[in-house]
Amino acid sequence: MPPRTFNGDPEGTREELMQATYRALREHGYADLTIERIGEEFEKSVSLVYHHYGGKDELLVDFLGFMLEEFEAASDVDDDADPRERLWTALDRARSGPLDEDAEFTSALTELRVQAAHDPAYREQFDRTDRLFRERYAEIIRSGIERGVFREVDPESVADLLVTTVDGAILQVATTDRPVDPALDELEAYVRTRLLEDGVDDRSSS
Amino acid sequence: MPPRTFNGDPEGTREELMQATYRALREHGYADLTIERIGEEFEKSVSLVYHHYGGKDELLVDFLGFMLEEFEAASDVDDDADPRERLWTALDRARSGPLDEDAEFTSALTELRVQAAHDPAYREQFDRTDRLFRERYAEIIRSGIERGVFREVDPESVADLLVTTVDGAILQVATTDRPVDPALDELEAYVRTRLLEDGVDDRSSS
Repeated sequence: MPPRTFNGDPEGTREELMQATYRALREHGYADLTIERIGEEFEKSVSLVYHHYGGKDELLVDFLGFMLEEFEAASDVDDDADPRERLWTALDRARSGPLDEDAEFTSALTELRVQAAHDPAYREQFDRTDRLFRERYAEIIRSGIERGVFREVDPESVADLLVTTVDGAILQVATTDRPVDPALDELEAYVRTRLLEDGVDDRSSS
Repeated sequence: MPPRTFNGDPEGTREELMQATYRALREHGYADLTIERIGEEFEKSVSLVYHHYGGKDELLVDFLGFMLEEFEAASDVDDDADPRERLWTALDRARSGPLDEDAEFTSALTELRVQAAHDPAYREQFDRTDRLFRERYAEIIRSGIERGVFREVDPESVADLLVTTVDGAILQVATTDRPVDPALDELEAYVRTRLLEDGVDDRSSS
């Protein structure tokens, strides 16, 4: 989920509020976040926020839904492209998004994710998030099998492993000092040996 | 990290306190945990807890260290066993430990892990935890390569992927309703295709 969503000129009040939430979340993290602090980043009145949301959690769950919508809209499925190319692009996006650019935001998102351990509204959002990524990966793999460029694996199982490993890498970025690149390089090696007939493609030979 | 550590008869006051912490953590989770609530599970005086720890976080960081020591002591390295067998045992232990038996405790541990996003003492503990598992996996793989039963992969990279995926699976158990078995089955399929010459072994053919 690319933070760049929150950089351009906001279109309308909701997007403005979502950008304010993004900035406040990066700066304060979840635990120290308040509606007032989000209000400090918001050019309109903080009472407008209270008018729409019962509290910070209601706003943050909506924020997660907004991020997911933005992600869905930004990643239009290009069915015609080579499935190998599409898969590398999807994996690159996972690496350059939450894992790379913006450690404060990755930490804050991970704090939000853990709210799902006891809050059903957060749980539903992260369920949706994981499901969306899983379906995207599975669809690409399915298309590659149909075109004969990927081995006949179970697309859902491979997609599950991709989502689970990326989730683990995000957790490690947020909570340890270990670099995650070796694990993600190995995940790409897995994709090659598991999906490609000869275990190599343009990427590995370049 | 097996919760069964916390079931037997405690040996000494520290172990008794660690068991009390385990029970209180399972029952209340991190956010609602207090020294008083740990004291309710502890047969000795709560003032004894205050005497040793400056607050709940100091106690919980010590608790994480205790768990890791217990894990290290319980998993004696058996260099003589078949590396394939050792690797399956290690992966089975990851599946049957935090991922299976005890959802409340897995949730609470994940809440503790996220404290590492802003608390260096927690961060150090989870760094140690990931590093220990990584070293254990890498040592087994190295031994398998030396004995000619595993392919000549980079042991550290494979170990990194294993730890990262298990971390992701733990996060998913704590924060979503998705089953993690498909991802972990696929992780085992990865181990077979990546490490074993013919991609099969007793397990996959049984």
